[in-house]
Amino acid sequence: MEFGSAWYPEHWPEERWAEDVRLMCEAGFIVARIGEFAWSSLEPVEGHFQFEWMDRAICLLHKNGISVVIGTPTAAPPAWLTHHNPEVLAVEPNGRPAQHGNRCHVSPGNSTYHKYTRRIVEQLARRYGQDERVIGWQIDNEYNRIDYSEATHRQFQVYLKEKFVRIQSLNDFWSTAYWSQSYTDWNEIPLPIGPHNPGLMLAFKQFITKIWCDFQKIQIASLRLYARPEQWISHNFMEWFEGFDHYEVSADLDFASWDWCVGTGHMNHLMTGAAHDMIRGLKRKNFWLMETQPGSVNWQGVNNQLNRGEGRRMAWHAVAHGADALLYWQLRSAPGGQEQLHGSLLGPDGAPRPFYSEAAQIGKEFKKVSKKLRGTTIKNSVALLHSYDSRWSINAQRHHKDFDPVGFLRHCYRSFAARNVGTDIISAEADLSEFRLVIVPALVILSEKTMENLTTFVEGGGTLLLTIRCGQKETHNALFPTRQPGPLRELAGVEVEEYFALDAAVPIYSEWSDSLAGESTIWAEILKPIAEDVQILAKFGESNGWLDGRCACSCRNVGEKGGRVIVLGAWLSDTLQDSLTAWLLETTHIDVPFSDIPTGVEVGRRVSEAGEEIWIFINHKNHSVTLNIPSAPAGSANLDLLTDETFEAALPIPADGIRVLTNQQA
Amino acid sequence: MEFGSAWYPEHWPEERWAEDVRLMCEAGFIVARIGEFAWSSLEPVEGHFQFEWMDRAICLLHKNGISVVIGTPTAAPPAWLTHHNPEVLAVEPNGRPAQHGNRCHVSPGNSTYHKYTRRIVEQLARRYGQDERVIGWQIDNEYNRIDYSEATHRQFQVYLKEKFVRIQSLNDFWSTAYWSQSYTDWNEIPLPIGPHNPGLMLAFKQFITKIWCDFQKIQIASLRLYARPEQWISHNFMEWFEGFDHYEVSADLDFASWDWCVGTGHMNHLMTGAAHDMIRGLKRKNFWLMETQPGSVNWQGVNNQLNRGEGRRMAWHAVAHGADALLYWQLRSAPGGQEQLHGSLLGPDGAPRPFYSEAAQIGKEFKKVSKKLRGTTIKNSVALLHSYDSRWSINAQRHHKDFDPVGFLRHCYRSFAARNVGTDIISAEADLSEFRLVIVPALVILSEKTMENLTTFVEGGGTLLLTIRCGQKETHNALFPTRQPGPLRELAGVEVEEYFALDAAVPIYSEWSDSLAGESTIWAEILKPIAEDVQILAKFGESNGWLDGRCACSCRNVGEKGGRVIVLGAWLSDTLQDSLTAWLLETTHIDVPFSDIPTGVEVGRRVSEAGEEIWIFINHKNHSVTLNIPSAPAGSANLDLLTDETFEAALPIPADGIRVLTNQQA
Amino acid sequence: MEFGSAWYPEHWPEERWAEDVRLMCEAGFIVARIGEFAWSSLEPVEGHFQFEWMDRAICLLHKNGISVVIGTPTAAPPAWLTHHNPEVLAVEPNGRPAQHGNRCHVSPGNSTYHKYTRRIVEQLARRYGQDERVIGWQIDNEYNRIDYSEATHRQFQVYLKEKFVRIQSLNDFWSTAYWSQSYTDWNEIPLPIGPHNPGLMLAFKQFITKIWCDFQKIQIASLRLYARPEQWISHNFMEWFEGFDHYEVSADLDFASWDWCVGTGHMNHLMTGAAHDMIRGLKRKNFWLMETQPGSVNWQGVNNQLNRGEGRRMAWHAVAHGADALLYWQLRSAPGGQEQLHGSLLGPDGAPRPFYSEAAQIGKEFKKVSKKLRGTTIKNSVALLHSYDSRWSINAQRHHKDFDPVGFLRHCYRSFAARNVGTDIISAEADLSEFRLVIVPALVILSEKTMENLTTFVEGGGTLLLTIRCGQKETHNALFPTRQPGPLRELAGVEVEEYFALDAAVPIYSEWSDSLAGESTIWAEILKPIAEDVQILAKFGESNGWLDGRCACSCRNVGEKGGRVIVLGAWLSDTLQDSLTAWLLETTHIDVPFSDIPTGVEVGRRVSEAGEEIWIFINHKNHSVTLNIPSAPAGSANLDLLTDETFEAALPIPADGIRVLTNQQA
Repeated sequence: MEFGSAWYPEHWPEERWAEDVRLMCEAGFIVARIGEFAWSSLEPVEGHFQFEWMDRAICLLHKNGISVVIGTPTAAPPAWLTHHNPEVLAVEPNGRPAQHGNRCHVSPGNSTYHKYTRRIVEQLARRYGQDERVIGWQIDNEYNRIDYSEATHRQFQVYLKEKFVRIQSLNDFWSTAYWSQSYTDWNEIPLPIGPHNPGLMLAFKQFITKIWCDFQKIQIASLRLYARPEQWISHNFMEWFEGFDHYEVSADLDFASWDWCVGTGHMNHLMTGAAHDMIRGLKRKNFWLMETQPGSVNWQGVNNQLNRGEGRRMAWHAVAHGADALLYWQLRSAPGGQEQLHGSLLGPDGAPRPFYSEAAQIGKEFKKVSKKLRGTTIKNSVALLHSYDSRWSINAQRHHKDFDPVGFLRHCYRSFAARNVGTDIISAEADLSEFRLVIVPALVILSEKTMENLTTFVEGGGTLLLTIRCGQKETHNALFPTRQPGPLRELAGVEVEEYFALDAAVPIYSEWSDSLAGESTIWAEILKPIAEDVQILAKFGESNGWLDGRCACSCRNVGEKGGRVIVLGAWLSDTLQDSLTAWLLETTHIDVPFSDIPTGVEVGRRVSEAGEEIWIFINHKNHSVTLNIPSAPAGSANLDLLTDETFEAALPIPADGIRVLTNQQA
Repeated sequence: MEFGSAWYPEHWPEERWAEDVRLMCEAGFIVARIGEFAWSSLEPVEGHFQFEWMDRAICLLHKNGISVVIGTPTAAPPAWLTHHNPEVLAVEPNGRPAQHGNRCHVSPGNSTYHKYTRRIVEQLARRYGQDERVIGWQIDNEYNRIDYSEATHRQFQVYLKEKFVRIQSLNDFWSTAYWSQSYTDWNEIPLPIGPHNPGLMLAFKQFITKIWCDFQKIQIASLRLYARPEQWISHNFMEWFEGFDHYEVSADLDFASWDWCVGTGHMNHLMTGAAHDMIRGLKRKNFWLMETQPGSVNWQGVNNQLNRGEGRRMAWHAVAHGADALLYWQLRSAPGGQEQLHGSLLGPDGAPRPFYSEAAQIGKEFKKVSKKLRGTTIKNSVALLHSYDSRWSINAQRHHKDFDPVGFLRHCYRSFAARNVGTDIISAEADLSEFRLVIVPALVILSEKTMENLTTFVEGGGTLLLTIRCGQKETHNALFPTRQPGPLRELAGVEVEEYFALDAAVPIYSEWSDSLAGESTIWAEILKPIAEDVQILAKFGESNGWLDGRCACSCRNVGEKGGRVIVLGAWLSDTLQDSLTAWLLETTHIDVPFSDIPTGVEVGRRVSEAGEEIWIFINHKNHSVTLNIPSAPAGSANLDLLTDETFEAALPIPADGIRVLTNQQA
Repeated sequence: MEFGSAWYPEHWPEERWAEDVRLMCEAGFIVARIGEFAWSSLEPVEGHFQFEWMDRAICLLHKNGISVVIGTPTAAPPAWLTHHNPEVLAVEPNGRPAQHGNRCHVSPGNSTYHKYTRRIVEQLARRYGQDERVIGWQIDNEYNRIDYSEATHRQFQVYLKEKFVRIQSLNDFWSTAYWSQSYTDWNEIPLPIGPHNPGLMLAFKQFITKIWCDFQKIQIASLRLYARPEQWISHNFMEWFEGFDHYEVSADLDFASWDWCVGTGHMNHLMTGAAHDMIRGLKRKNFWLMETQPGSVNWQGVNNQLNRGEGRRMAWHAVAHGADALLYWQLRSAPGGQEQLHGSLLGPDGAPRPFYSEAAQIGKEFKKVSKKLRGTTIKNSVALLHSYDSRWSINAQRHHKDFDPVGFLRHCYRSFAARNVGTDIISAEADLSEFRLVIVPALVILSEKTMENLTTFVEGGGTLLLTIRCGQKETHNALFPTRQPGPLRELAGVEVEEYFALDAAVPIYSEWSDSLAGESTIWAEILKPIAEDVQILAKFGESNGWLDGRCACSCRNVGEKGGRVIVLGAWLSDTLQDSLTAWLLETTHIDVPFSDIPTGVEVGRRVSEAGEEIWIFINHKNHSVTLNIPSAPAGSANLDLLTDETFEAALPIPADGIRVLTNQQA
């Protein structure tokens, strides 16, 4: 486990550095991220570079046992750069250029900006690419800006020309006969601002993805010119941000990172686990928490502090979901600047704030288990599929204002997390061979590749749950010329006769639960069997006259290997979703060792390549609990790596407590 | 009854057309609207026209007994047009041009756009003007765009010069000494964005009205160059949209049409009846429902489906209020385009969606009664007056945020609709000679013509109810130099001593109801008698000290013929408004045959020129009811045209059911 | 007491004027403000001035005993001015120029506008500067506009250069190493739109303040060229408006004025008293109510009328807080213009509206007490400190959305007002020698001068209450390199270990109240004693784990003279704040003669230079009350100046009633 924080030595007089580093060490920090946003300190005048201060900072860190991650500073160009090259400033949808001083104010696709980016990144790579003290690179920071300049507009038209080749092909895919949208020349195509043709809107999102990929490739190429292969390259993503396709953008990275803040209120591990799993799913490997919240943030309506102990639970929650590093943002706030009031480890006087003590405790614990955790990762039997194309498509046309596709994915996720069943959240086109149960939440756009992927999975014996809004559109965001689930109709044995945005809840009667156990809200779909061998698992009750008595959930067995396709035509209430999940796990014969422990107690598992298991128990409640655990095999014991205690059948966990159990040879 | 749908053959491969038309026929469709938005298919390259596909579509429809309405495609110009003539793009209030691809993105007053408009419309008229299969024309689609370009700004100044002739005259009418607004030259006058001088704001609305009139006149002139007189010309308006004066714009049309969607939630016939009546009142003749909702729409927060049976009730509700045609929008959604998820009759696979069966039932019923309905229309004794000038004036200065002038009109309407008393909703300047009771809701602007109109009505023996906010302003939106109701003070015998936007409800004690029967909310006015013969009908109870005990409703008898002016100084609670309405009907001796039937059962009446009556009963409730009806005269029977059953004194109507009764000679 | 209204003779035909003035007299008016917004009437064509109408208006007023205040018309330039000089139009943040016709649409810093301003104001001063009938001048109207033009942008850069001299100094004060904001040239610095660097944002507010000061200085200089010294110069401010520093802007005025409207709802004297006191504190002298609401306004969601009697209570409330004049806005609404529906004294017919009678009553009463009130002012022992720098700093970074700094000041104020303890609300840099208790609400920015000011106060024997959010930042909006309260830590004997934006209430246990008497919401701070002699007055109860049991309120005695510093780390509930206030008053030995009278009865006191006291009792309740009052000294009586009644020990006050008591020699 790497543990540390962001540090901005350029904000402070050099005589302060030693004390900062001393306090890092005392908290158990072994890694620091520097350089992010430091462009004006590294290149204060165009073409004149100052690396000496960074050399000295790295040297000081290294002397104190702290290794370094360098963030490339391209999210914050110097004032001279934007002032002399105003064309690099991103243009807002209203036509006004962004202002210097708020970071991310440049166009990531601007060729002039690429030139400057290349130069500063190559300079950094040349200086630190062979440096043993520097272990990796973070490119830019939280990609997010969209530029609406005329230059980007032209690039978009070129992008479309490359994608569609013939203008008639674009017209066909986008149904442009509709509303006389038909284009006769590429340069007639607008950059969409606000709602527009679904094909155009989807292509624009994909274009923005490409802008980020290209911008990142420039930086990776510049780094790799000089960087030794052991230096990894990553980027710190923002949770469920949907500005671009994270699968595409993370493809060129060594691993994914993300910046996790609770923000306002408090951690709900049933929700935040999904974000961790999604980020882990980007590269299907462990990830870094490149930034996390030391106490509070400053950008919410109510920037409350984490409760005492909550930061520690967050840390172990991240580890239980595959984090290999945790860095606080940041050590100490600069006296000025927009984030003066953001949480930090040190106060304005440079002395520890209360949260520092909690960080120091985590530091000690990480040190204790670090060796054991090394090389371990997460292995699950259940996957949920996730797709940016589908999220973009639905969010542009929710049809029901509360149909948040991420909300629906998390609704599906919740019922597994509540039973402590680990899940992977992965791309719809990812290999599914290691799973036994796959949930497909609202995959409205269905590529041929995904269709084959799902078919292969089911034919291989897997259980597939298709939900509402699956398989309605092809890859240009046009309707399939069939009912849902489109090309999966035959496999599913049902088609959607009609879909309903619901203005009132609809009762559901299911096979997997006693009589009336719940209802459908927000959305419902009438499933019409189109094959003989379809079993009806649930029906709608009395409602709007159309839904009454019709099939709400179907099941069809596929092939010789026990494969099944279950189609669910409803956004179920939590209780009913829970009982469906229990039934799915049971009928898929997935082992659920901690399904009945008290709500609020989380259990995660990391597994080494050799199959050795480490169980992480987190008591999110403010009172102690005692769990029944399986006895260790003869000749071994259940050892808590944090306390060195061993436990037989009963595992007591104090309020807010953590246990990290492994099987230890006696 | 015309019955059909919008159809866009240009969205589909021609081999599909036959099946589409077959399904239209099967649903009983006898009319189809085509061509709307098809400009890029009709003129794919500037000056090169393609009509062959439209010829073939019309031919196919005709062969199957379906007549054609052509929509002129000017709400959606081709991309080449706006790209080569960017000056035709409408400019947003923020100064940015609208984008191609979202329809209605052009300036309807732009002279270049007029040139292109004239050409495409003349081409269509030349080709189909003599075509017997084409029965009529819809011009453009749902006029709505306001252009804030510099060119429109100049046109507005020219418009003002023509209207006021001398700049001093404008200054006087607009009180421009206020805030130093005085203009010394026409070119100093701004195009108002946001709140501005009331005179300027009103003139701007009237100018926009003229823009639409002129744009429409160009199209009518182009059509009439070639169109045979039997081809009618209409436009599909949007309900209560207040972007222009619908009386002015509909003056040049043969009849009015509108596009009726419930949108979200479900039909409330007490409200939607008002919209039908208002549209009927535009030309004081029957109208077309040019578009209506087949199941759901796609532009609401929650796009729920209509309940089963609700579409049928909507259809008959429209007929009962004067619709002579009903067209669904649309047959089938294009695979792409912004309205992919809008309701339609056919699904993405081209097969009927569930709602189709309900449409087919309506088709059968319409066929059955069509002959009987031919030539019938709506005759009422009660009218409500409606004025765009007054709506604009109030909406720009509501004074109480909940004072929605349409809401207040519907509040007045509701109490009549709830008693099944039909009303006309007509221009304040319309001839009132056929009515016995006229309600004037919030007619804040009072023209001389209207004043004379109302005076003539009362002197002719009519009962006039003036409500709150009547007669405060003259026609340039300036205050009358008198208290309300301005020039009607003498006639009314009262004047408004003070008006009150209410922050709390005020009790009302009235003559027409037992002691305390209700209260006033939102608005109240103290009525001060200024004539001897004024009778006080209601008083305010204890309130803010000013209103306490003062007159809230007055009545004055006028002339020899039994005329009365009643002035109401309150926005009454529903109960009190209901009892006032009952009292008004009783004292005006208006016959109310179905006033006491169960709530939720609607009764409408159409009358032939010969005086033959057709009664339409709609049970909006989900259980059956039985009504007492008058026995048919001897030798005749009450015949239900839908079922061919006859009824004596009791008329049972099933849940969601319809009865269409006429008197049939035995 | 001056009493009158705004009057706009230029809106009316001259033959009407006599009647207007007659009605003013009848209401007891003795002053009228004219000229405001009359520029186009005074200079209808560039360089051609018309003063004759104003001469005649002034003459007519004077003949009727009404003196004149002239408003300079610069808030509403004529159309010809902005049309010929479009560069004077203010630019909106979106880059669009403001429109003519909505007043305040010009850039107050524009040099062309300065030229025109100078000319019109000098012309006015030359004509009326020696006029005995004109008693004073109001400059412009409700300063508020911010201009985002390029010209203002350049001026801002020049301003910064003058302020910081060296660019490196600016970089240091603003911590621009953060996010690469560092500037290498003054012309790189943006005009901030939306959130930005705290140093930049604060400097921008100070720059805007300077724009107004300069604009006002131009007008004062132009006036003083010709005006006799007896003519005073003022400006009508807007309550808590925070667009500029009112202390700076009012420095050049003879006294402050403000425009008081209740707006929607009704007067809460516990809140509005704070606004009066703040305005009085601007110059530490009595003020004018230059505009107040006759009945209703027109710019709220619900523009309800004041209750009968409420306007009278407002008038006496103002007097009790130091108003020396009250002018209604306005006599009568122009027929057109944006404020047609604003309340007024005369109706559209030129006859009195109901509220006029209440104004006339006030007029009579003011006349009766005017002589006695002359020369009296307000003297208090308690002050609350107020700072625009701190408000700007907090409002830009509230950290908790409900942390409204004015709301917090009023929260502190309320508990004094509720006990009828008069307070001054003054600048944090003002002399405090006359006070015994000083409250410092959320003074986040602490200047050296303020620190010395507070220290002197405490060392002189005063009791100082420092609240939450005090002393966190220095004068460039950067964090102090210490914990709060920064340089006051030593004096206070505590420092803030951590601050908390609260997402849930926290219980508080205090010394000044029985056990659990309340709680803290919105904000809490852990106070850590750093001196031996610190007494703990309150502690937090069980909460988030960090606050539990920690010090919430401390007290430290300072010096020989009984000085104390109390630090409060909580936003207390009202009850707990009340008991703290009671304890503070008691322990500071401040006399509270009417602390226990019924809620809703207000008592104010004005004192003559000779020490003669006038007590104003206002019964804000709708039922009568009887108060116990101290008996008058022998040989004198408690005389009610309004009724000429005398009272011994019991003072009955009717519902909505007023008593103005003074001690009268028998």
